[in-house]
Amino acid sequence: MGEVSIITIGDELLSGHTVDTNAVYIGRRLADMGHSVRSMFTVGDSARDIAAVLKRALKSDVIITTGGLGPTKDDITKQTVTDALGTKLVRGATPLANPVGIAPGIFIEEGKTLIFLLPGVPREMKSIFENQVVPLLRQRLASHSLITVTFHTTDISESRIQELIGEIGDTGFLPHHTGVDLRISRKTKGEMEELRKFLKCRLGEALYGEDGDTLEVVVGKLLKSGHLTIGVAESLTGGLVMHRITNVSGSSDYFIGGVVAYSNELKSAILGVKGETLKRYGAVSRQTALEMADGIRKVTGADIGTSTTGIAGPTGGTKKKPIGLVYTAVCGRGRAKCKRNLFKGDRLMIKEMSAQKVLDMVRLYVRAIHTP
Amino acid sequence: MGEVSIITIGDELLSGHTVDTNAVYIGRRLADMGHSVRSMFTVGDSARDIAAVLKRALKSDVIITTGGLGPTKDDITKQTVTDALGTKLVRGATPLANPVGIAPGIFIEEGKTLIFLLPGVPREMKSIFENQVVPLLRQRLASHSLITVTFHTTDISESRIQELIGEIGDTGFLPHHTGVDLRISRKTKGEMEELRKFLKCRLGEALYGEDGDTLEVVVGKLLKSGHLTIGVAESLTGGLVMHRITNVSGSSDYFIGGVVAYSNELKSAILGVKGETLKRYGAVSRQTALEMADGIRKVTGADIGTSTTGIAGPTGGTKKKPIGLVYTAVCGRGRAKCKRNLFKGDRLMIKEMSAQKVLDMVRLYVRAIHTP
Repeated sequence: MGEVSIITIGDELLSGHTVDTNAVYIGRRLADMGHSVRSMFTVGDSARDIAAVLKRALKSDVIITTGGLGPTKDDITKQTVTDALGTKLVRGATPLANPVGIAPGIFIEEGKTLIFLLPGVPREMKSIFENQVVPLLRQRLASHSLITVTFHTTDISESRIQELIGEIGDTGFLPHHTGVDLRISRKTKGEMEELRKFLKCRLGEALYGEDGDTLEVVVGKLLKSGHLTIGVAESLTGGLVMHRITNVSGSSDYFIGGVVAYSNELKSAILGVKGETLKRYGAVSRQTALEMADGIRKVTGADIGTSTTGIAGPTGGTKKKPIGLVYTAVCGRGRAKCKRNLFKGDRLMIKEMSAQKVLDMVRLYVRAIHTP
Repeated sequence: MGEVSIITIGDELLSGHTVDTNAVYIGRRLADMGHSVRSMFTVGDSARDIAAVLKRALKSDVIITTGGLGPTKDDITKQTVTDALGTKLVRGATPLANPVGIAPGIFIEEGKTLIFLLPGVPREMKSIFENQVVPLLRQRLASHSLITVTFHTTDISESRIQELIGEIGDTGFLPHHTGVDLRISRKTKGEMEELRKFLKCRLGEALYGEDGDTLEVVVGKLLKSGHLTIGVAESLTGGLVMHRITNVSGSSDYFIGGVVAYSNELKSAILGVKGETLKRYGAVSRQTALEMADGIRKVTGADIGTSTTGIAGPTGGTKKKPIGLVYTAVCGRGRAKCKRNLFKGDRLMIKEMSAQKVLDMVRLYVRAIHTP
């Protein structure tokens, strides 16, 4: 397990106007490979600053820099590194081919430290990182590497997870407003497989996927393998549920379409929600959610209809129906489920929690009818 | 203009599984205030590493740390700083009240360096930063501060902007796949006002907003002030256009609703796209886009109807209709516009560029009918 320093270079990163996705990407990939990122530095396009952090980082086993390599005036990393490490470098430097851009990466061994200089354009950085840096690290630091998997859960609290799984070691909890991720490392594939079984047993349906699995990917796979189609009716989520579903390539196989019915008129006109229901229970109610889900199922001819209706805020809440009150529903032929949720957060968070909830209900619904 | 170092602390940041939004937030706010962020450091919850970067950062005028302050075992920042700077610190430290959480921030003056220790929870960090750090910095470093504004453009290239505005000084270009932002600093309000007029004159309609203005916010204001309503029909964007519109609080005043018609059947059944049109020109065509926009206008009873249809990829492209071919349309009573776009990028980027394009068409459409 090597100690790594990541150095990202660029004035635009310091001003906070370009989010440093490179450091996040590299950090995550290295952590997944079992390496320990010791520190991350971000400096501007200044030779003096680059040289200073580089010298500090030389204590690490691996240094990865991004940015400052390119055909522009900002291209100062290479020269600075050469200056900082002396002439030996020039001899020991190996170019790393860049199949998707102009500037190649550079690989240098300085004492026991492996140094990789990568371009700052994320697409180019990723290409060189995956195709050349990862194999080189595997080869040089292979004996140390751990297997790390991120397990995704939703609709369960961090403390409840801790209660259920106890102290199992090498576990990081990453709570988000839409669920809790668990990053767990093990030495061998066998140990990881055992852990996977343990988590499935303890966490049950709350565990929905691993690593790159998003909830929409998992739901898509379930719908596809069950030969089921879906239609979506949204109110407060305003299109987010469908946006997530259609981010998955191939979603047209199971997603027929849907309606965002913000106004009550549209809820009645397209989805067939009864005027009487809206009048008696209101747009934010169990009854309306169920009629919306049933309505979109009929309009689209899908096997499954699903819906959201609620109050995203920051205005529009009342004592009886506060901001964050959201009904989510799913229905198929003959079966229907509706849940009353009370979410806390800002407008976007409430939309996101609602979308996550309804996708999760679809997942459980499909699993219930199709579990072998 | 003070030189600032930002230090973010937390193991979870190094593993790349929590994106370091704090550093981005602080960097942006300080840049807006005219300060220069010299470097950003991210270290884990290790006293040795925190002390090392802190000592390095002492050359700056201002140091801001986030994380490692709290009622948990990770709460090591305070002790480490005390150790690193010696006993003087304890006497010179001022607590910064935290109205939204438990752990207060801490303010320390060490020689000419102002040090702020803030909690890692973004909501708490922001509250203390805005209410206490910003006023303190204004007071201590006031004479240096610049006015910085970010101007947002779309549908214009970086090189074309450069051609149009020439060399105007203190300008940073931030190109995204949905537009180019310009960050420009000036010494006085008067100078900024002059610049604003100059940019409006040179960039014309490509300039859509400043600072916090997103395109959906700008479109929302235009619709509201024109007393206009809108309905949206989406195909490839899959709900993203409506998700963006409904992220704006108060959007229910002008957004009635819309349809995501992924299947051809739904395009006909709800939006009234003619079978003949789909057969003759295909779903991805000018004719279908226009019929979708007109259809959703009729269904929702809105003043304006808008639509997207195209191929997001990564599959489904043909020689005649490649991935990235997108038609975007907008129509009102009697007027209709449709644009053929050819976007380059991955699935999500093509969705995002399409959504941006259609929102921009709505903006220009409303401006054309309502410009005083």
